[in-house]
Amino acid sequence: MPTTPERALEVVPNPHPDRDYEVNLEIPEFTCLCPRTGQPDFATIRVVYVPDRHLVELKSIKLYIWSFRNEGAFHEDVTNRILDDFVAVANPRFIEVTGDFGVRGGIKTVVRVSHGKRPGV
Amino acid sequence: MPTTPERALEVVPNPHPDRDYEVNLEIPEFTCLCPRTGQPDFATIRVVYVPDRHLVELKSIKLYIWSFRNEGAFHEDVTNRILDDFVAVANPRFIEVTGDFGVRGGIKTVVRVSHGKRPGV
Amino acid sequence: MPTTPERALEVVPNPHPDRDYEVNLEIPEFTCLCPRTGQPDFATIRVVYVPDRHLVELKSIKLYIWSFRNEGAFHEDVTNRILDDFVAVANPRFIEVTGDFGVRGGIKTVVRVSHGKRPGV
Amino acid sequence: MPTTPERALEVVPNPHPDRDYEVNLEIPEFTCLCPRTGQPDFATIRVVYVPDRHLVELKSIKLYIWSFRNEGAFHEDVTNRILDDFVAVANPRFIEVTGDFGVRGGIKTVVRVSHGKRPGV
Amino acid sequence: MPTTPERALEVVPNPHPDRDYEVNLEIPEFTCLCPRTGQPDFATIRVVYVPDRHLVELKSIKLYIWSFRNEGAFHEDVTNRILDDFVAVANPRFIEVTGDFGVRGGIKTVVRVSHGKRPGV
Amino acid sequence: MPTTPERALEVVPNPHPDRDYEVNLEIPEFTCLCPRTGQPDFATIRVVYVPDRHLVELKSIKLYIWSFRNEGAFHEDVTNRILDDFVAVANPRFIEVTGDFGVRGGIKTVVRVSHGKRPGV
Amino acid sequence: MPTTPERALEVVPNPHPDRDYEVNLEIPEFTCLCPRTGQPDFATIRVVYVPDRHLVELKSIKLYIWSFRNEGAFHEDVTNRILDDFVAVANPRFIEVTGDFGVRGGIKTVVRVSHGKRPGV
Amino acid sequence: MPTTPERALEVVPNPHPDRDYEVNLEIPEFTCLCPRTGQPDFATIRVVYVPDRHLVELKSIKLYIWSFRNEGAFHEDVTNRILDDFVAVANPRFIEVTGDFGVRGGIKTVVRVSHGKRPGV
Amino acid sequence: MPTTPERALEVVPNPHPDRDYEVNLEIPEFTCLCPRTGQPDFATIRVVYVPDRHLVELKSIKLYIWSFRNEGAFHEDVTNRILDDFVAVANPRFIEVTGDFGVRGGIKTVVRVSHGKRPGV
Amino acid sequence: MPTTPERALEVVPNPHPDRDYEVNLEIPEFTCLCPRTGQPDFATIRVVYVPDRHLVELKSIKLYIWSFRNEGAFHEDVTNRILDDFVAVANPRFIEVTGDFGVRGGIKTVVRVSHGKRPGV
Repeated sequence: MPTTPERALEVVPNPHPDRDYEVNLEIPEFTCLCPRTGQPDFATIRVVYVPDRHLVELKSIKLYIWSFRNEGAFHEDVTNRILDDFVAVANPRFIEVTGDFGVRGGIKTVVRVSHGKRPGV
Repeated sequence: MPTTPERALEVVPNPHPDRDYEVNLEIPEFTCLCPRTGQPDFATIRVVYVPDRHLVELKSIKLYIWSFRNEGAFHEDVTNRILDDFVAVANPRFIEVTGDFGVRGGIKTVVRVSHGKRPGV
Repeated sequence: MPTTPERALEVVPNPHPDRDYEVNLEIPEFTCLCPRTGQPDFATIRVVYVPDRHLVELKSIKLYIWSFRNEGAFHEDVTNRILDDFVAVANPRFIEVTGDFGVRGGIKTVVRVSHGKRPGV
Repeated sequence: MPTTPERALEVVPNPHPDRDYEVNLEIPEFTCLCPRTGQPDFATIRVVYVPDRHLVELKSIKLYIWSFRNEGAFHEDVTNRILDDFVAVANPRFIEVTGDFGVRGGIKTVVRVSHGKRPGV
Repeated sequence: MPTTPERALEVVPNPHPDRDYEVNLEIPEFTCLCPRTGQPDFATIRVVYVPDRHLVELKSIKLYIWSFRNEGAFHEDVTNRILDDFVAVANPRFIEVTGDFGVRGGIKTVVRVSHGKRPGV
Repeated sequence: MPTTPERALEVVPNPHPDRDYEVNLEIPEFTCLCPRTGQPDFATIRVVYVPDRHLVELKSIKLYIWSFRNEGAFHEDVTNRILDDFVAVANPRFIEVTGDFGVRGGIKTVVRVSHGKRPGV
Repeated sequence: MPTTPERALEVVPNPHPDRDYEVNLEIPEFTCLCPRTGQPDFATIRVVYVPDRHLVELKSIKLYIWSFRNEGAFHEDVTNRILDDFVAVANPRFIEVTGDFGVRGGIKTVVRVSHGKRPGV
Repeated sequence: MPTTPERALEVVPNPHPDRDYEVNLEIPEFTCLCPRTGQPDFATIRVVYVPDRHLVELKSIKLYIWSFRNEGAFHEDVTNRILDDFVAVANPRFIEVTGDFGVRGGIKTVVRVSHGKRPGV
Repeated sequence: MPTTPERALEVVPNPHPDRDYEVNLEIPEFTCLCPRTGQPDFATIRVVYVPDRHLVELKSIKLYIWSFRNEGAFHEDVTNRILDDFVAVANPRFIEVTGDFGVRGGIKTVVRVSHGKRPGV
Repeated sequence: MPTTPERALEVVPNPHPDRDYEVNLEIPEFTCLCPRTGQPDFATIRVVYVPDRHLVELKSIKLYIWSFRNEGAFHEDVTNRILDDFVAVANPRFIEVTGDFGVRGGIKTVVRVSHGKRPGV
């Protein structure tokens, strides 16, 4: 499913492109809807990436995360899609996205996906 | 001992089979019976797997875990059997199962078993 | 619902009946069934009591707690019934029972009930 | 603002109305919208009440909490309104509601309101 | 020392003035300068108040806290002055301000001051 | 059972008898034997007392605690006896003894007993 | 034992003498010598006081605490003496001193002493 | 020093000998005597092993650990001897024993020893 | 942007240049201004380095950190610049700088950058 | 600076020299003086070593650590010197010393140094 326009992540130039370094983002206020039952799901999303030419701009990340609020999304799928969207706009040298979801049916689920090879930062 | 029908784990297609990623499940409400004494045992079961073609469906995991409630099972054996059952239905690229059992005789036991080689997720 | 025979708590004489003192019990391995859905519930039960003439014997508490395993019981009701059963056999000067149940529907429930007036121990 | 029909909390009879006891509910997955900016707010809602003739039914609490998802609500106001709604349907002997909201502008806000006098449970 | 204009806290009407309830604010990003040495001091400021006719508006609190950044202020004095400023604009039924300062000379200092009598919220 | 000679607690004069103050002792290395089964029990003993004319000497407390190592003692009884022995030698204005025992049969037991009225230290 | 000159605490005027408020000091780097064995003792000293006309100046507290470094002092005595010295120089409306000492002989000791009546700050 | 008969660990067949997996045991209630001073020592013993043909039976571990209660044993030596005894009866593919001892003379000691090569479980 | 003179880090000779060893610095009191909005930002800065011929002098680090107080600085940029400044004055064999910033827009950011290859210290 | 006689660490034979194993020591009560200002410094010293022919005797470590009490010592230097002294007396196969010092100027310093290659214990 393509990302809708109002969900666009934005980028700014990386001021230190000559060096591998890590940016870690923790976003505890993610919510979406279960596509099967319509019930709300809540998660903390964690992103770690090593920028190449671009940094992902912080305010656009906030708006991007909000855009999932009324959308149906499976745990495994939405975590992969967030990774895809970061790769599409910023093409980082390495990125890992973790979706840490609330308890459902007595079970807690955490999905972790990465792209590229982590440099020895 | 073969898994009884009502214990069947169910699978759904993996929406991102082209990529290695991890699904972590924490299940704090596992209980079975000690085969020797009949006394209840309690454990937290943790599962980490890298799906291949299938994800294991969350509701079926809940029912599967409940099915041990009135069955006799040694700590080391039941942890291995849960791993076997996940492998049989979903054949993941990698899986690790940890059984974290309550104190018995002043001793706490944790059993950890894996199958396949963990990819560099 | 009257307590079935095999659920009987047992008592032993209090060796220091001339003094108010507290006995605290924490029982993390309580499980019963939801009367409406049949699904398992898990709780930690905490008991604090000031004995009068009798102490409640530890092994009988263990067996008593196990006896709820296959019985239907609402959170609020079962916590009150455990209090009633302790009062019936040991008639303590004061007792408080807390049922600390697992998450259901994203909500965690803790029920706390007492009998008698807590002395200035 | 009157509570809309689909937001109705439901009650069941209290099985032990002859005794003061506490029911504690922790609901970590509350979200609403800021009435001024439209941005999402997140909170953990905690409810402690001493039932009189009625208990508030757990599933209806879950649906009630979800109903705030797309509604504008100030921190101080929404915490008071949840208290009002519990009082309207169950008229407990005592109730305290705490709204524990996420950081905004570098400031964390917690609102706490009660109704009735807490009995010596 | 009177509060300068750009430091003005602002108020909004209390939507539930008929009831005593508590608003707790935790502000971990307070900094000022030591009047004697000019070196920066850092603190977490905590405010608990029971509003009367007015709530203190959140964004104005943020700006108010920033306004101390380049001002000299002793630990004991600044905590009292924040209390005075809240009282001046909102006249709460009760208020307590706590200034929790960083280690200086191997000693950690916490100053706590209140105004009015805490109601039995 | 009278305390054997080698178990004698010793006292020294209180250097500040004109003032109520508290001495707290935490002793995590207490062990005795279960009188029924002979199996070892382990506990942390906590003592809080307000001295009158005497302090209890620290080294004698260490030896006193060791003296229980090969003696049979029920949880409730031994906690009361330690209180009795402190009272016999030092006659404090107030004393509270807590015996915090290890898990047995899945149940953790804490016994708390006091003597005298706690002054407003 | 009178306080030697080089150990003098110093005071500054209280800028808000019209109001009861608390100053809490945590001093984790206290060391003295055991008068019996000469071995070093280590403690965290905590002071809470409600100033009257004077505050105790922070740098003088640091120097005062250092002055015990090579002096023999029993746990119970030194805690009382620190309280006496604060009272002598600043005469606070209320003061509590806590000496939290390291493990000796497997036993941890905490001494707590106060002077005056704690106001309802 | 050879292990006395009453100290014998017992084994049961490994139900899954075809697979490398870990068994972790935490035993917080170990006590022995210092061979030089006769004073009691306390430790938590942790054992991690990968079984080959045999598992070490849990109840025999409990009795084995109790058997050190009245025996003199240096920290470094007893940790090595426990490892030797596990190897002698069960010959695991890998084993690590950790002895985590209480504070003596203000110093905490932890001894860690292993046998065999840890497989990539 | 070149470092202004008053921001100069200072060095002292490394007393053990023949050996690789690590110096870890944790600096919880860093603040600067957001270049876009002018609002204050707060961070904990962590530095780990393996000195070559020089150590960075502690007091100059304190002053250096203060010098950012009224300067605009993006998270990713300032963390890299601190690394550059340490390298320029002390040329360590290895250095890693971590900027752990406060929550903005519900998102917490941590930036981590290193220079040189970490020796097997 | 050579170690003075009264500071001598002592050794005892290693009872298991045929095997690599680790001894970990945590010493929270280290204090020395700053050579520049004379003010006291406090640290926790941690030592991990793999003994060869000798163990370092525990009581001599206690006395050795005390001997720094009135000596001037820079953080980086004293940590290296403790390592040198352990190597000189016991020549372990591997040793790591960590000096974890208290906050000075708002900065916490930890120095870590090792000697030899850590075996795969």
